[in-house]
Amino acid sequence: MTELEKGPTGRRRGRGARERILSASQRLFREQGINRTGMEQLCAAAEVSKRTAYQHFSSKDELVAEYLRRFDPTVLSGVLDHADLTPRERLLAAFEIPPTTPLCPYIAAAVELHDPQHPASQYARDYKNAVAARLADTAREAGAADPERLGEQLALLLDGAAARTRVLDADAFPTAAAIAAALIDNAIAATDSDEH
Amino acid sequence: MTELEKGPTGRRRGRGARERILSASQRLFREQGINRTGMEQLCAAAEVSKRTAYQHFSSKDELVAEYLRRFDPTVLSGVLDHADLTPRERLLAAFEIPPTTPLCPYIAAAVELHDPQHPASQYARDYKNAVAARLADTAREAGAADPERLGEQLALLLDGAAARTRVLDADAFPTAAAIAAALIDNAIAATDSDEH
Repeated sequence: MTELEKGPTGRRRGRGARERILSASQRLFREQGINRTGMEQLCAAAEVSKRTAYQHFSSKDELVAEYLRRFDPTVLSGVLDHADLTPRERLLAAFEIPPTTPLCPYIAAAVELHDPQHPASQYARDYKNAVAARLADTAREAGAADPERLGEQLALLLDGAAARTRVLDADAFPTAAAIAAALIDNAIAATDSDEH
Repeated sequence: MTELEKGPTGRRRGRGARERILSASQRLFREQGINRTGMEQLCAAAEVSKRTAYQHFSSKDELVAEYLRRFDPTVLSGVLDHADLTPRERLLAAFEIPPTTPLCPYIAAAVELHDPQHPASQYARDYKNAVAARLADTAREAGAADPERLGEQLALLLDGAAARTRVLDADAFPTAAAIAAALIDNAIAATDSDEH
């Protein structure tokens, strides 16, 4: 049980309030941004009093960190564990992001929060490093020459596609996927030529 | 003369106020973000009254758009025009960004302003497309097989390095430069093999 879950969760009503606050944050932080969403608006949307909100989250900063932790960290792992696909196909499947997907919440938080020591910034960093490590594992399975390097490269492409999709207001994931395919093929070809 | 420059700039004092407001916005928007910087704080930092500020900028939105327009749009062109370098070297020079460089202000604005129709979002989009077009011109000079495609790919890498540097709080431009080198070499090799 994390520090955040220790609140007055024994009471049914308290737990409901906590979930309503998180659910309101998921909608409002994405729709209008973290900095433009005040505790007052969050409380109104969640139908809780400010007093109740601060019983569950000692500060907005704590709520922002928990908001990020709530995103399913296994989403990409799910793609990368897909048993029907070859490792190469799994790496490319990570780039099949529906065009309507909102901007990556970890990038959004890192841009909005201006403080690398903020708990949410730290969590965003850990998450991004974990994604690169998972891509590296799959790159190793695919037989890439330097899997750590390829994992970091593919992670950068995913972040580039996310940022560029937002700034162009047009889907940049196909461009990133084409680069990924070229890098994967280069990395696997390098291993093949070493072996033969 | 743009619409924004038409204000009461005939008076020396008015012109000074306008520049002071823009200068304050350049510091505060980058240090703490657009959404966390209110007109009140901007006016205090610029030492102008709110009344004066609204004589120069009818709204904060107009100020944000002008803030973005003020970044030197020839920075990247300067790198790409460097006569001592080969086209390939010029493309790679675009990735030599000092690690202390703040996050690209166009990405920051697109993330913060949740509205693709905001004048600043539109300007950010135009700027990013112009960068890709300039990279494509240099890719053409370098003899790339599909220069438009390579230009768009390199632009995505620059955006990915910017976003990932922010979220990891660590320099991601060397990773992007290595990918760029591989893509450029692939694109030039494709042309060479067509020719021979």
